[in-house]
Amino acid sequence: MAKPIEFYFDFSSPYGYLASTQIDALGAKHKRDVAWHPFLLGAAFKVTGQTALVEQPLRGPYHLHDFARSARLLGVPFRLPENFPFFALAASRAFYWLGGDDRAKRLAKSVYHAAFGEGRDVTPVAVVAEFANAQGIEGLEQGIELPETKAKLRNVTDQAIAGGIFGSPFFIVDGEAFWGHDRLAQVDRWLATGGW
Amino acid sequence: MAKPIEFYFDFSSPYGYLASTQIDALGAKHKRDVAWHPFLLGAAFKVTGQTALVEQPLRGPYHLHDFARSARLLGVPFRLPENFPFFALAASRAFYWLGGDDRAKRLAKSVYHAAFGEGRDVTPVAVVAEFANAQGIEGLEQGIELPETKAKLRNVTDQAIAGGIFGSPFFIVDGEAFWGHDRLAQVDRWLATGGW
Repeated sequence: MAKPIEFYFDFSSPYGYLASTQIDALGAKHKRDVAWHPFLLGAAFKVTGQTALVEQPLRGPYHLHDFARSARLLGVPFRLPENFPFFALAASRAFYWLGGDDRAKRLAKSVYHAAFGEGRDVTPVAVVAEFANAQGIEGLEQGIELPETKAKLRNVTDQAIAGGIFGSPFFIVDGEAFWGHDRLAQVDRWLATGGW
Repeated sequence: MAKPIEFYFDFSSPYGYLASTQIDALGAKHKRDVAWHPFLLGAAFKVTGQTALVEQPLRGPYHLHDFARSARLLGVPFRLPENFPFFALAASRAFYWLGGDDRAKRLAKSVYHAAFGEGRDVTPVAVVAEFANAQGIEGLEQGIELPETKAKLRNVTDQAIAGGIFGSPFFIVDGEAFWGHDRLAQVDRWLATGGW
């Protein structure tokens, strides 16, 4: 089987959420697995000098409008949580505590849907644990505090930045980098044609 | 006739160049005029805290790659000038000296093609004057120094920023704002459907 699509995102990223609702179907269309990689976008922002979009003059109001408009175009629910922008440390660590497998991907989808489909605050550990419990997974509260869990998230984040990844969502397709949910049509075309 | 598509851009913007090669055909498809509005993106950056893309860690290398990749996808020539990023004051003023009419639009297309299709330095007044001369227009050197010419560019820039325009290219379609050449498909759809 061909290499997976590498899908990097931050759980606090509305555009990452939008991409998360599309990327597995896109992978399936091209018979590609999709490897999900939550990382801490704030660490990349320290390198690039960026700040949260909605905190920026002019850019903030535009993007608040564009989040919802983009969601309507995709036909996915969208509601910005009151605590946005937030820091999704518990969800990010939980993903790697679960080893990034299918259970982790299901957890990620639950977190994203709650955060941006329903506008819930997903920063409390208890909320993330609730989604794990719904899959029959116990022990998340302890698991995300393990040194190896924390180290895994740090390493993924460091390696993402070292690999030039600075935004969410970010896709790597056979070594080719694409930034933004609005580049999914290009990702689709790249997968279909092998590039242009 | 319906309202024109408002097309804001900076002559130093590669994505603005890409959009400039597409927007008139898109307007014609929907029987809309396209009103071109060069402005000084640097003034917007002062408000938003942004800097030139290519000068930003991680983001710069990505966008240098993406400029060329996006151009190939559109099938338009692309060559980054050695003096990029540059400040396109003469071309911007010349556009308004000509009153923003069809001659101004032809001049703008000449400037953009030279800058990003051929990689020429378009900052010297003499280069912009050469494009004007090719249309039989004389006196550009003096025209761009007129106080009313300078004021017009300043006013367009100030009003753009006051209207929330912070990037290049930027489109206003019946009051709806779209940022980026990669939103042209959405602009197309908005024009076709009246929104979603």
